Amino acid sequence: MGLYVLKFGGTSVGSIDRIKHVAQLIGEQRDGGHDVVVAVSAMSGETDRLLGLAKAIDAAPPPRELDVLLATGEQVTIALLAMTLETMGYAARSYTGAQVTIRTDGVHGKARILAVDERRIRADLELGRVVVVAGFQGVDAAHNITTLGRGGSDTTAVALAAAMKADECKVFTDVDGVFTTDPRMVPEARRLQRVTFEEMLEMASLGAKVLQIRSVEFASKFGVPLRVLSTFGSNGGTLIAPEDGQEMETPLISGIAFNRDEAKITVLGVQDRPGIASSILEPVAAANIEVDMIVQNAGRDGSTDFTFTVHRSDFGKAMQVVEAVRGAIGAQQVIGDNRIAKISLVGVGMRSHAGIASKMFRALAIEGINILMISTSEIKISAVVDEKYLELGVRSLHSAFALEQDSNLSDESLQVN
Amino acid sequence: MGLYVLKFGGTSVGSIDRIKHVAQLIGEQRDGGHDVVVAVSAMSGETDRLLGLAKAIDAAPPPRELDVLLATGEQVTIALLAMTLETMGYAARSYTGAQVTIRTDGVHGKARILAVDERRIRADLELGRVVVVAGFQGVDAAHNITTLGRGGSDTTAVALAAAMKADECKVFTDVDGVFTTDPRMVPEARRLQRVTFEEMLEMASLGAKVLQIRSVEFASKFGVPLRVLSTFGSNGGTLIAPEDGQEMETPLISGIAFNRDEAKITVLGVQDRPGIASSILEPVAAANIEVDMIVQNAGRDGSTDFTFTVHRSDFGKAMQVVEAVRGAIGAQQVIGDNRIAKISLVGVGMRSHAGIASKMFRALAIEGINILMISTSEIKISAVVDEKYLELGVRSLHSAFALEQDSNLSDESLQVN
Repeated sequence: MGLYVLKFGGTSVGSIDRIKHVAQLIGEQRDGGHDVVVAVSAMSGETDRLLGLAKAIDAAPPPRELDVLLATGEQVTIALLAMTLETMGYAARSYTGAQVTIRTDGVHGKARILAVDERRIRADLELGRVVVVAGFQGVDAAHNITTLGRGGSDTTAVALAAAMKADECKVFTDVDGVFTTDPRMVPEARRLQRVTFEEMLEMASLGAKVLQIRSVEFASKFGVPLRVLSTFGSNGGTLIAPEDGQEMETPLISGIAFNRDEAKITVLGVQDRPGIASSILEPVAAANIEVDMIVQNAGRDGSTDFTFTVHRSDFGKAMQVVEAVRGAIGAQQVIGDNRIAKISLVGVGMRSHAGIASKMFRALAIEGINILMISTSEIKISAVVDEKYLELGVRSLHSAFALEQDSNLSDESLQVN
Repeated sequence: MGLYVLKFGGTSVGSIDRIKHVAQLIGEQRDGGHDVVVAVSAMSGETDRLLGLAKAIDAAPPPRELDVLLATGEQVTIALLAMTLETMGYAARSYTGAQVTIRTDGVHGKARILAVDERRIRADLELGRVVVVAGFQGVDAAHNITTLGRGGSDTTAVALAAAMKADECKVFTDVDGVFTTDPRMVPEARRLQRVTFEEMLEMASLGAKVLQIRSVEFASKFGVPLRVLSTFGSNGGTLIAPEDGQEMETPLISGIAFNRDEAKITVLGVQDRPGIASSILEPVAAANIEVDMIVQNAGRDGSTDFTFTVHRSDFGKAMQVVEAVRGAIGAQQVIGDNRIAKISLVGVGMRSHAGIASKMFRALAIEGINILMISTSEIKISAVVDEKYLELGVRSLHSAFALEQDSNLSDESLQVN
């Protein structure tokens, strides 16, 4: 008899029929004797509808009032889901973030959860009720309604699971779990039964978007086992949890993430002295441009080349910003390329194994793919290549590392979207 | 410099353009140096949309969850209105019923307001802010969201005005005020500048529906001057307030109310003994049929006739209920008529003047209108007539009592819808 926090996103509760389906999934958990707390998003389209109303008033509506407006989206869902559960014979209670109470800071639109009062939920569970909580929202110390920002319902679910010390937080989405890479690009891509928090963070930030990254950080911080699974499928999804010391051997590589919307900017002939990197990046940051990779080679003759990547939509602006400081930092030239893509191997196993990088570079070389940039972390190796080689690169690496095979594969059938 | 509570209904805030118009009206009050608290309803159509979602789940959804759902309607409006005010340069803050706090009992769907905490509102007013409060909703002692039932936003406005000791509660609607009778029936109908609470209660319950009756009772109880005026017009509307002792003479008759959806049921030859009336009405009440007029003549030969009226849609059911008890009470026969209408003269002035009734009956007789039933109260005389005589009756009475004339008429021009 476990305690589970279930989270359903906007697509999963996008219509009355879908809400009924979600209620059935919840009912199955109850029938199994488990206690269930549910966090839900607004019905798909509802948040955009509300935003549209606000934008008709002001392109930049007052943040406090925007939160009051947007918070109604989840409130509608909790009421409808609790009704459906009750109609099906399962006792249920809905709560807004304010009612729980989910206490946040006062940063409207992207508030951070400070504390979850679990007493009211606990009392309902003891009475055999399903507790349905509005995701994405809370209240600050002055009882103002706040929202956590888009995707914040995942964070709500994890925060509830942490506060309740739940056995697992199950996030239901429209995908079957986390895959070795995007199945639309590599049909052989395999669903992972388990990844570590660290791998998930690298995969998520690199573009394999399944979970909001903040919720993974949150789950990692509080040690909440997180399971991603499909609302409409029947397999066990992917469990995101700490590295399992029990297993004899973890796989070298868990998956291949990629990002096609990159652009790179190189400042050539920069003086090789302290403070140059910040002289280049500070005006970039001041222009609200997010920087992804940063690479600087060892210099020679007192000068070096400095390269960083940005989102492709920021390419033009970033070029202008850097060009404007070129003289001041004594650089020779600024060159850029906005037709690049990044491919990353991710796996906690690479920490204890040598040779992953050389095997990766060899596999790309065999296909004639030139590597433009390289960057590594403890559990990740990223290579930037010409955009036209993206699919070929991902497929050849997936095959080279035999990711379609899994020695730990259970007798479950694979489900690939 | 006054303190005003303004209330805007669903039609007045039914679109972004209308919300902007409402914000302008509020801004004019602020520009005049007044403090302003606003109570608003859900945008027109929104409550029905939400009800539709609930009904798709269950014909009788759980009341607690229905309240959670419906309360989002007003929450959307307060956010949009506060945004609009801020965008126009007027500092504003929105509050849900729970945030105010508006404390109610726990009767979901028709909760009664127990207390209004005015401290937060007062603090905002001192900071020069317009306070925008969600009508129709509150919270019970256990922080469950409650609603006051349809039209409850009027009650919210009056409760806020009472708590704040406001100078006036201005209810903006789509009519210009309270008229001597329905202008669609009598083009000469005149807007009343002032009526008493008692007259308004009689007019409202008799079909001249402008304000929710509970809000008038509330205003009367707490002595809150209530003004009804049009969101889209420019006249001063109608002030509903205690009888003004200053005036030399109050008019005999303030207005003529009428109701065409009536049906009457007569139990003939009832034994004239105690308990008979309740024997007839108890099963009617048990069948959830509301009774309007009740008339019993003085009996003769130990028997009498007992007549009551119900809403026309309840006629068939009421006939069945009474027929079922006919034998037990020893009545001879039950007869009914569902093509009747009621015409009522209302006026506090009739308390101190004789002859109103005879003048009324004579006016109807001149037109050949037979009176089927008569009932009177201190400030009202009602006559039931054949439905086909309704318009003729109302017009002849309007003319007989010269209601189109007003000795107190100011130099404002008359506005008749």
